[in-house]
Amino acid sequence: MTYLEELGTAACKAKYELAALNTEKKNEILRLCAEDLENGESALLAANAKDLEHAAARGMSEAMQDRLRLTPDRIRGISEGIRQVALLPDPVGEILERFERPNGLQIEKVRVPFGVIGIIFESRPNVTADAFSLTFKTGNAVILRGGSDAICTNSEIVRILRESLQKSGVTRDAVQLLTDTSRETAAQFMKMKAYVDVLIPRGGAGLIRSVVENANIPVIETGTGNCHVYVDEDADLEMAVKILLNAKLQRISVCNACESLVVHRGIKDIFLPMLRDALKERVELRADAESLEVLGDAAVSATEEDFGTEYLDYILSVKTVGSVQEAIDHINRYHTGHSDAIVTKNAEHAELFLNGVDSACVYVNASTRFTDGFEFGFGAEIGISTQKLHARGPMGLRELTSYKYKVRGTGQVRG
Amino acid sequence: MTYLEELGTAACKAKYELAALNTEKKNEILRLCAEDLENGESALLAANAKDLEHAAARGMSEAMQDRLRLTPDRIRGISEGIRQVALLPDPVGEILERFERPNGLQIEKVRVPFGVIGIIFESRPNVTADAFSLTFKTGNAVILRGGSDAICTNSEIVRILRESLQKSGVTRDAVQLLTDTSRETAAQFMKMKAYVDVLIPRGGAGLIRSVVENANIPVIETGTGNCHVYVDEDADLEMAVKILLNAKLQRISVCNACESLVVHRGIKDIFLPMLRDALKERVELRADAESLEVLGDAAVSATEEDFGTEYLDYILSVKTVGSVQEAIDHINRYHTGHSDAIVTKNAEHAELFLNGVDSACVYVNASTRFTDGFEFGFGAEIGISTQKLHARGPMGLRELTSYKYKVRGTGQVRG
Repeated sequence: MTYLEELGTAACKAKYELAALNTEKKNEILRLCAEDLENGESALLAANAKDLEHAAARGMSEAMQDRLRLTPDRIRGISEGIRQVALLPDPVGEILERFERPNGLQIEKVRVPFGVIGIIFESRPNVTADAFSLTFKTGNAVILRGGSDAICTNSEIVRILRESLQKSGVTRDAVQLLTDTSRETAAQFMKMKAYVDVLIPRGGAGLIRSVVENANIPVIETGTGNCHVYVDEDADLEMAVKILLNAKLQRISVCNACESLVVHRGIKDIFLPMLRDALKERVELRADAESLEVLGDAAVSATEEDFGTEYLDYILSVKTVGSVQEAIDHINRYHTGHSDAIVTKNAEHAELFLNGVDSACVYVNASTRFTDGFEFGFGAEIGISTQKLHARGPMGLRELTSYKYKVRGTGQVRG
Repeated sequence: MTYLEELGTAACKAKYELAALNTEKKNEILRLCAEDLENGESALLAANAKDLEHAAARGMSEAMQDRLRLTPDRIRGISEGIRQVALLPDPVGEILERFERPNGLQIEKVRVPFGVIGIIFESRPNVTADAFSLTFKTGNAVILRGGSDAICTNSEIVRILRESLQKSGVTRDAVQLLTDTSRETAAQFMKMKAYVDVLIPRGGAGLIRSVVENANIPVIETGTGNCHVYVDEDADLEMAVKILLNAKLQRISVCNACESLVVHRGIKDIFLPMLRDALKERVELRADAESLEVLGDAAVSATEEDFGTEYLDYILSVKTVGSVQEAIDHINRYHTGHSDAIVTKNAEHAELFLNGVDSACVYVNASTRFTDGFEFGFGAEIGISTQKLHARGPMGLRELTSYKYKVRGTGQVRG
């Protein structure tokens, strides 16, 4: 048996035990995990220091090192996150539908765990504990494959979690970490359809593309966001400025940040100067010919590539259109199906936009930054799906479950 | 632009028009399509005769030729199927949830079409019209890739459907057929993630495996069924015989037919002879050592491979176990997660089995043959999903939809 087959076999064995755990027991274990992580502070910081030392030796940027860094505060944050998950309702066992057929068969559609979830992520070590708490709460076994940068930290987190599980009398294999972080092993991991029910990549566009192209396990694609704000002819322009500033600048490097402004020709001469003044040169504007005329030296000329780019940076593309429909067509052509907004006082335009834009989340008069499991009130988030199969938009606990049909009969056969 | 890119572009253009069609208009078009197919009987039979001629020349078996054959009756059956779909409720637009956040954001989760669905299937030409009616009713554009054996028939069906659409003033590209039926083109089709939202293969295990391994489009895996019936120690043995005969023999070549009997040691000496007598040598029994002792010359020895095989034939494997849990473990090891049944009078055993067996449909005291969209009351079926992502078990109209979040605000920004 190969290393990966061993992991897969252990996870498949664990999933039956986990699916049968009751909510109270799961919550109790989550609280214990949170406590044990806090008590493990010195070991966690020591492991993290090793990762940071390697990172510095390899010349990792300060910003990236900061993403990798644990502090006592951050450890408490991680534990607090686990305790929050313990407080959330357990979706497993929920009866989604119940009906009787004319032949007397009683059919129940019941929410069940997926079984085994694979999560492939990059350097932030908080994802390790986060992903465990969400998959465990939903009765799933998880196999984690984190980045090699965080391997010491991730190993220590998982060691503590497995010890907490064992102390609680529950299989440690509820969580396993792929300690071989080579690309070859990652590629093989994506092909473990015989063991893993669903694979969720969390990270940059490159990681996600690689998983989508290589996996034979069903994938939930997450997180790439080329989000648009369309300012309609009938917009409240001050509201539009406020929404744009928030969507673009409140947090620059996240998937629900705005990357492109679409503006109606009828208001561009008033609106674009307002926006330019509000941005105070904090953002590079890449404008099409018509908006460039208005913006002058405050902008540069956009290429077609700009409209399809998720910058995650202090850059905004600007496109001029002549109607809501033209805005919808432009957005559907260039977006990633994540989040797009219209600012308008016109109810008809709002409905056209809500129906016409093919995104997970479509907004009227609000910032795209609200696309988030916590902001939606799900209490948790494993990622934001940009595909249409299974889950779309923010994914909370329910989105980490499947269902089964339980059919009770009295000897029925098919005629 | 390549041939496939042209098809993809046309489908992506069509999807917006289709998503906006109201239910009445869709139903009217479906009824017209049904009528036009009936009126096209002679052209359909002529096209089908060409396929049959090629098939005979290539030495296709009579059974396979029969699957390919259209008759006036079968054409009426196809049209009747379309009319039935017109009568079903339209899932598109259903508001799945509606909630308000403390900041005043109004969030609606609304059922929407996927967009573009790809369907890859084998020789039965009725799938062509069937797949169109279900995808059209749910507001999706569909690209069909049927087997080369049925290419003349499929082309004629799609020609008629496209003409009906055009007469109705709706884009003909709601349905397109891949007329190049080469394997290379099929392989490229599976990689059209930029155009196709979901891919559904319908056919044998080989086709499905090929799609799962090669596609970069999200796939819904359908139809492979290694289904089990477990006869418990506490079973009503006459009921068990009746259920087994039905599950095994009512239709031999379908995915919800029983392929394996699991029998409790405590009743095998009584039950196996009852079953043997009822089967009257119609079925080859491949038995493990313990059951072989009872069955004697009426059975042959099973290999491990037998337990993992979907025969679709007059063959049944037989496994002896000592408890419900052992039965569950055996089934979870060898099944395909499609449909499995327990026959028992013991309520506790029934619940253990319902919870422990990891299948789309788990039955107590009923035949596995009920796993079917019509038998479940969905009024239609595009296939039976054996994966856990998105849809599990029989897939009707709802399973051909996704959802989006519509969020209405009054200028909210994230703090």
